[in-house]
Amino acid sequence: MTHAHAPTTPRSTLVVTAHAGDFVWRAGGAIALAAARGEKVTIACLTFGERGESARAWREGKDLAQIKALRRDEAERAAATLGAEVRFLDAGDHPLLPTPELTDRLVALYRETQPDVVLTHPADDPYNGDHPAAHRMALEARILAQAIGYPADGEVIGAPPVFYFEPHQPEMSGFRPEVLLDITEVWETKRKAMECLAAQRHLWDYYTDLAVRRGVQLRRNAGPNLGLAHRTLAEAYMRPYPQIAKELA
Amino acid sequence: MTHAHAPTTPRSTLVVTAHAGDFVWRAGGAIALAAARGEKVTIACLTFGERGESARAWREGKDLAQIKALRRDEAERAAATLGAEVRFLDAGDHPLLPTPELTDRLVALYRETQPDVVLTHPADDPYNGDHPAAHRMALEARILAQAIGYPADGEVIGAPPVFYFEPHQPEMSGFRPEVLLDITEVWETKRKAMECLAAQRHLWDYYTDLAVRRGVQLRRNAGPNLGLAHRTLAEAYMRPYPQIAKELA
Amino acid sequence: MTHAHAPTTPRSTLVVTAHAGDFVWRAGGAIALAAARGEKVTIACLTFGERGESARAWREGKDLAQIKALRRDEAERAAATLGAEVRFLDAGDHPLLPTPELTDRLVALYRETQPDVVLTHPADDPYNGDHPAAHRMALEARILAQAIGYPADGEVIGAPPVFYFEPHQPEMSGFRPEVLLDITEVWETKRKAMECLAAQRHLWDYYTDLAVRRGVQLRRNAGPNLGLAHRTLAEAYMRPYPQIAKELA
Amino acid sequence: MTHAHAPTTPRSTLVVTAHAGDFVWRAGGAIALAAARGEKVTIACLTFGERGESARAWREGKDLAQIKALRRDEAERAAATLGAEVRFLDAGDHPLLPTPELTDRLVALYRETQPDVVLTHPADDPYNGDHPAAHRMALEARILAQAIGYPADGEVIGAPPVFYFEPHQPEMSGFRPEVLLDITEVWETKRKAMECLAAQRHLWDYYTDLAVRRGVQLRRNAGPNLGLAHRTLAEAYMRPYPQIAKELA
Amino acid sequence: MTHAHAPTTPRSTLVVTAHAGDFVWRAGGAIALAAARGEKVTIACLTFGERGESARAWREGKDLAQIKALRRDEAERAAATLGAEVRFLDAGDHPLLPTPELTDRLVALYRETQPDVVLTHPADDPYNGDHPAAHRMALEARILAQAIGYPADGEVIGAPPVFYFEPHQPEMSGFRPEVLLDITEVWETKRKAMECLAAQRHLWDYYTDLAVRRGVQLRRNAGPNLGLAHRTLAEAYMRPYPQIAKELA
Amino acid sequence: MTHAHAPTTPRSTLVVTAHAGDFVWRAGGAIALAAARGEKVTIACLTFGERGESARAWREGKDLAQIKALRRDEAERAAATLGAEVRFLDAGDHPLLPTPELTDRLVALYRETQPDVVLTHPADDPYNGDHPAAHRMALEARILAQAIGYPADGEVIGAPPVFYFEPHQPEMSGFRPEVLLDITEVWETKRKAMECLAAQRHLWDYYTDLAVRRGVQLRRNAGPNLGLAHRTLAEAYMRPYPQIAKELA
Repeated sequence: MTHAHAPTTPRSTLVVTAHAGDFVWRAGGAIALAAARGEKVTIACLTFGERGESARAWREGKDLAQIKALRRDEAERAAATLGAEVRFLDAGDHPLLPTPELTDRLVALYRETQPDVVLTHPADDPYNGDHPAAHRMALEARILAQAIGYPADGEVIGAPPVFYFEPHQPEMSGFRPEVLLDITEVWETKRKAMECLAAQRHLWDYYTDLAVRRGVQLRRNAGPNLGLAHRTLAEAYMRPYPQIAKELA
Repeated sequence: MTHAHAPTTPRSTLVVTAHAGDFVWRAGGAIALAAARGEKVTIACLTFGERGESARAWREGKDLAQIKALRRDEAERAAATLGAEVRFLDAGDHPLLPTPELTDRLVALYRETQPDVVLTHPADDPYNGDHPAAHRMALEARILAQAIGYPADGEVIGAPPVFYFEPHQPEMSGFRPEVLLDITEVWETKRKAMECLAAQRHLWDYYTDLAVRRGVQLRRNAGPNLGLAHRTLAEAYMRPYPQIAKELA
Repeated sequence: MTHAHAPTTPRSTLVVTAHAGDFVWRAGGAIALAAARGEKVTIACLTFGERGESARAWREGKDLAQIKALRRDEAERAAATLGAEVRFLDAGDHPLLPTPELTDRLVALYRETQPDVVLTHPADDPYNGDHPAAHRMALEARILAQAIGYPADGEVIGAPPVFYFEPHQPEMSGFRPEVLLDITEVWETKRKAMECLAAQRHLWDYYTDLAVRRGVQLRRNAGPNLGLAHRTLAEAYMRPYPQIAKELA
Repeated sequence: MTHAHAPTTPRSTLVVTAHAGDFVWRAGGAIALAAARGEKVTIACLTFGERGESARAWREGKDLAQIKALRRDEAERAAATLGAEVRFLDAGDHPLLPTPELTDRLVALYRETQPDVVLTHPADDPYNGDHPAAHRMALEARILAQAIGYPADGEVIGAPPVFYFEPHQPEMSGFRPEVLLDITEVWETKRKAMECLAAQRHLWDYYTDLAVRRGVQLRRNAGPNLGLAHRTLAEAYMRPYPQIAKELA
Repeated sequence: MTHAHAPTTPRSTLVVTAHAGDFVWRAGGAIALAAARGEKVTIACLTFGERGESARAWREGKDLAQIKALRRDEAERAAATLGAEVRFLDAGDHPLLPTPELTDRLVALYRETQPDVVLTHPADDPYNGDHPAAHRMALEARILAQAIGYPADGEVIGAPPVFYFEPHQPEMSGFRPEVLLDITEVWETKRKAMECLAAQRHLWDYYTDLAVRRGVQLRRNAGPNLGLAHRTLAEAYMRPYPQIAKELA
Repeated sequence: MTHAHAPTTPRSTLVVTAHAGDFVWRAGGAIALAAARGEKVTIACLTFGERGESARAWREGKDLAQIKALRRDEAERAAATLGAEVRFLDAGDHPLLPTPELTDRLVALYRETQPDVVLTHPADDPYNGDHPAAHRMALEARILAQAIGYPADGEVIGAPPVFYFEPHQPEMSGFRPEVLLDITEVWETKRKAMECLAAQRHLWDYYTDLAVRRGVQLRRNAGPNLGLAHRTLAEAYMRPYPQIAKELA
């Protein structure tokens, strides 16, 4: 129902994240699926995660510029692996401070990319305040970009559906899986993208196990007869706005 | 993703409701859409609504048997208009008392109809206790019907998705629209089915207005560019189990 | 707005409680206020609290009949002190088991008393299951009594407002004060009624302190200028259905 | 209970809204009722809604100053129709940015108007961030204005009750009707005020339908016997602080 | 603070579960820890899980008696491995129907075992109604067993703390980890007990992965400096009643 | 489990509060207990409560500097009575405005004091916005202080458990007692500390009554057999992060 563009315009996905690595762990499958369908995916990393997500590099004595460069490089390789483009807003993390200027840059990005789908963090995370901050700016900019009266370049956007990807500690963050996305066919791509993030090697298996577990849950909610792959892998999402449907299924 | 049947078996929808009229007001559009796609829709009316939903007939002096016959007739004509089959379990309403026997009859119906989709009431309704009672039995029977160890005829079922249709006072019943179903193309059919319920004539316009309002909400959540009909009509649903998806949209 | 009766019929309040003492501690002020206005108050005690609320009597070696008689006597004197009539349904407590027959007796009482106001327990109490059981029956009977099709004697009732009185451990029971009732002018009456419950002497001061504390809260929510008594005493209530108003105040 | 003023001082209502049109759609009935009782109503419009609520004017090519003038004119005529005074704070909308200075201006207005009742937006609105921003400032300023230590002109205020009016998409905004206000007798006035907002003509019938629906709900919660007008019209409100009562009704 | 018994009485834990396998997957670590401290653990299995949790046996053509015997044997061996005693109430599963008689048997068990700690299922599980049914009876019986007036043999009990173990789909069941129990030192015992449940071999690794994940969460919430084992394993619990403490830690 | 320090380092508690008096009323018992165990307690008062909590002094005509001096003196004497050290950040109250600079000062304090336990306000308080503001900064600074990349002096901290103390109107602030701390043995000390706050004499008995009530609740949740003092006094806390445990008790 969302083919709003001219026939020659591919669908567009915008991913708004706090730190350079978030899009890989939490939404790498959705990104790879969209890219595999020939769609355009743009990832906005508000920060590099240089202070809050780079403990090992700091312990190894690297300085701020080195760490940013390292994180940028990793994220660019991971995005390329997934088939997406990444933009760094370098707003400074830990804490990530929302400002009207930063929101304005996101509005411009919304208008430039004209997303059909938006992915971002959920509202709460008691372990990292940057994630809720990114969430708030992503949602606010989406609304502002819809208004013809908002002074930014580009066309106003529609009201693209929003999906929240899964936080690191879902039960502590009020996260309930509302959509289980089958990522089996792009799993190898997601795993390769994760392996671009050498500094967080301990998370490779953690997020592999999560994909298996969400896959088991997908199968349990889909019933036994669906001809699913024996080993289904999945990502979980929340959907804060109503789904628009032509059919209940 | 839910085409579990052999190619020649049409998809099946099971609607479990408390009273004879519920399926028309709350889910008539979804039923008509499924029927229009050539699918099978079976409606289980646990009661005729003979005591709690038939005030006018009682005031006119009709007796219990007359009222049941009247409600049955209305519901059968409405179901035929929508293209569905209706089954009456005649369990007695107001209050509708859950019993193991009644649940068992529902299990048998699940196994007989092998539903791909289940529609029923949401969990709460502070104005009518029969609706939550039907909700509980519908959900319990769905789980029991999945177990090979449960002693009932027929094949076990999968885990069909469940949708809750909209109660009469949504804000008081914890109802939040999670799916907005576009029923524009079958609207005339739904209106005709409503008009089969002559005893509740005051609700015809009420539910027409609701369809308009949900349509406006659908348009607002879909964005301005979708080529929707100028006057979109819709029904709202909740989805208590996760959606299984191949694509975020 | 709720003067539904002929001019000569006083307003009527129905209080539905689990145990013989509940109406005193939790709603004695509201009952005394209504009685002081010349209104009719009927208290339905579903049980005497003979098993779950009479530990001292059991320890003293009294038997079941003695304890019931004791509790009945105390409750009757307390009700008389407040100016209300009490009815005992003697349904057996701890556990209080909901049955269709017991609900039916409540429906009859609703139709007989034609209440303008209903008071009962809130939905949850993790320390005593009889309170939620009484709550559920009180609400169900209120709905059934409204239906002309429900087979019971007497006239159908309207939709009287419902108030939940305060449980013993409010924060653990999801209780949030939504109405603070000023009971200052009938406080001495409530205290005297409490003192009729000799077996629970330790609660006299407990509920006096609660009345003081709710009075402080009333003053804090009312602002400093209201000419309230220096020592305001209050009871707290929840209101599950919308208030009908002619003015916002 | 809230007649805190000298006998000659009429009661005062303060309405704090984000945009120039909000008070008409959402609280026009309450305002007209208060004015009809001879009370004073002051409306604070934090912005004109010039960017986020004026799509048609922007599409017609009007500039910012023109749009502000247009919205001011419409709002002033609507307020006059209702019998209220409107103040424009012109803080800039979409986004409306909370600042200490803006809150301070609201504190001054609280102290100037000494409200007996406060109306404002509820806490959440996933479709417009200006509404929650106005909500937060309205509540914060109310608390600050109560403190003798807060450095602003005028007398400290009491703790006036607060009511949240209904958002455009109530079920998506956590809005549950807690007060249903009967606005039947001032309905024609509210309709005329709505018709002052020519740019939003499509909302005239939308909010008429809402008033009818809330009226039906009022009747359903009031019972059948109340001698209400056949066609009752109503507005819904939430009440975040406890109601102070002399009687349960 | 809970050493209520004479010095020579070991502490007692009562585990109330719906099906024969539940105590192993969900609370095997807590049981093994208590047993390793020389405490007494009694497990009440309300059913064998013969209908709802034995799909493989049914598919293999076993009959009801065979399946019950199989499940009993597995559960007894697992309990022995953990160091606990298991009691089978054989109440019939899928659905497990709460009855006063069954609750009464649980009351007797509470009085017999005089538990210092109670473990049971949480309140909700949208995938299996037997778990909430067992939850309700476990909590109700605990309250009844405290009352001297309840007619059952044995001494009344105190108010032992209750813990809810983790359901199979925690995010869908409203489960939030409130206590993370370090089971590292008894992990091998729990694994051996799981391996007694041959019919559910696919869950061995599933619950091993869960223990690892809860262990990671324990470490994250405990801080980096605690001298924890490199590979900490844990179980998660909810605590519905307040913790009684001599120290905040 | 939290003895992270060298044997000679006493445990450390950090209390972060909005106003000078908060730590006495709400956490005086916990502070006195820790001090009595020979531990270190540091109290950060973000403001003196000079504007919002000093109505009497303003009415007596004191000026800002005098009031700050008065509140500082009272708080220092109360802290000394409890055995704790107090730090004043003098950030200005009513409203307390969160700033990156103020958060940074808190981060430095976390790193300096290396707390094993953190006490602060809960998330919501509809009667005083300074409390939630202090809450947010306390939690944010705790997370920032854990990151090696955050540029502040001192060692990074672990993840100390957090406890929320009880607000003035618990039911209105979403406060549910999750930990009941027995403060009987230090009650006289807490009472003496309260009496240092001469300007709020009306709260002495209010918080004494609260301690009695929480003590009654502690006894009710602990069971009758625990050998508790006849008059147990207690403070209530919430625990937002999971408890780490070696034993369920």
